[in-house]
Amino acid sequence: MYLFYTPDISGDAYTLSEEESKHCVRVLRLGTGDAVHLIDGRGGLYAAQITEAHDKRCTVRITGVQREVGKRSGYLHVALAPTKNVERYEWFLEKATEIGVDEITPLLCERSERRTVKAERSEKVVTAAVKQSLKAYHPHLNPMRDFAAFVAQPFDGVKCIAHCMASQKRPLQHLVHPQGRTLALIGPEGDFSPLEVELARQNGFVEVSLGNSRLRTETAGVVTCCIAQLKAELGI
Amino acid sequence: MYLFYTPDISGDAYTLSEEESKHCVRVLRLGTGDAVHLIDGRGGLYAAQITEAHDKRCTVRITGVQREVGKRSGYLHVALAPTKNVERYEWFLEKATEIGVDEITPLLCERSERRTVKAERSEKVVTAAVKQSLKAYHPHLNPMRDFAAFVAQPFDGVKCIAHCMASQKRPLQHLVHPQGRTLALIGPEGDFSPLEVELARQNGFVEVSLGNSRLRTETAGVVTCCIAQLKAELGI
Repeated sequence: MYLFYTPDISGDAYTLSEEESKHCVRVLRLGTGDAVHLIDGRGGLYAAQITEAHDKRCTVRITGVQREVGKRSGYLHVALAPTKNVERYEWFLEKATEIGVDEITPLLCERSERRTVKAERSEKVVTAAVKQSLKAYHPHLNPMRDFAAFVAQPFDGVKCIAHCMASQKRPLQHLVHPQGRTLALIGPEGDFSPLEVELARQNGFVEVSLGNSRLRTETAGVVTCCIAQLKAELGI
Repeated sequence: MYLFYTPDISGDAYTLSEEESKHCVRVLRLGTGDAVHLIDGRGGLYAAQITEAHDKRCTVRITGVQREVGKRSGYLHVALAPTKNVERYEWFLEKATEIGVDEITPLLCERSERRTVKAERSEKVVTAAVKQSLKAYHPHLNPMRDFAAFVAQPFDGVKCIAHCMASQKRPLQHLVHPQGRTLALIGPEGDFSPLEVELARQNGFVEVSLGNSRLRTETAGVVTCCIAQLKAELGI
């Protein structure tokens, strides 16, 4: 099933973008009368019928809608320092979306190897993963935030910071509540600095471990999503 | 800490390969008398001292050894159909090694998009991940196996097949025993065929789900490792 991502959908008719129209008519070879599915990224899954199979402005008529499709129990926000190798960061974006995440913030840390990200490119990667993994919810992608400013802002839920230094750390799986909200911070290749961990602690973050293994940044991000998803599905 | 991978280590002296000697002397800039660490891939972590810092045949003297370093409770064998895009398959090899896996078999399935893999290349990816994630155990990488032949061979432990078809599937996390042995099959992009699933069932495999999400092949492989590792560390 191919899902068209149409966040601006409203009413009972829609015109696909030029890119999606071309894909619909030239790649999928669909024509007038054929059924298609659209998602709004907020849980809405729409059944529709093509009214005009134009390869630049294909129009559809909405025939049905399901709400809150695949709604996740709990809420996960992962704030992670993008890796020097942008492919690894994009791998994280894709896998986090497949497994399950609600919000992602690229972090600018003291030891960050990458100080900018291309927001448009990140959005494309996430949208492609949403469509490919048949999700009705599109994760929120925030602009890059400075670490100190980010940890100071309020978050209603459990706040965790994962790092590799020897310290009193609790396993993340003990802190994630299946129906609760979780914010997890993942540091750059060189880890968070002791000052950053201290600043996070002062702002109510708990130091966590993601297990016994030393994980790369992007792997840690994916493992975080796995742990949260497993807790949500196990319901414990 | 840089780990030299030396599976053929024996006795109290060792000569590094040409490649590792060059890395030791030219990249790490280590010299005679400096301390290094070696792993044999079977749990042994060796402390050593450089006796001659030659950039082609660097020799070391073993000064100490720890056994069973990071020994995993339980045993996980993941048999997965390599993806058409070989980079995705190599991402899986790397991430599975980081998170924790004991044995990997590339599978040749009915709907396989990739019918050969370069064993030497796969081995390099896994070895690099072992060293980078500071592991003393090197996963076993098997040659590609035909599905029917593979499911027919004996395995002492829980045997699972993950697929996307509608069926009575049990969550993998309910089947993985923290101290037990698990074999998990992950299919190609187009999933296992109904005939393959039936053949697996006849050979004692249990149909499992990896959660509510539709996962790519390589993601399913990584999630499998996460689930097993989480069960092992949670001890439940």
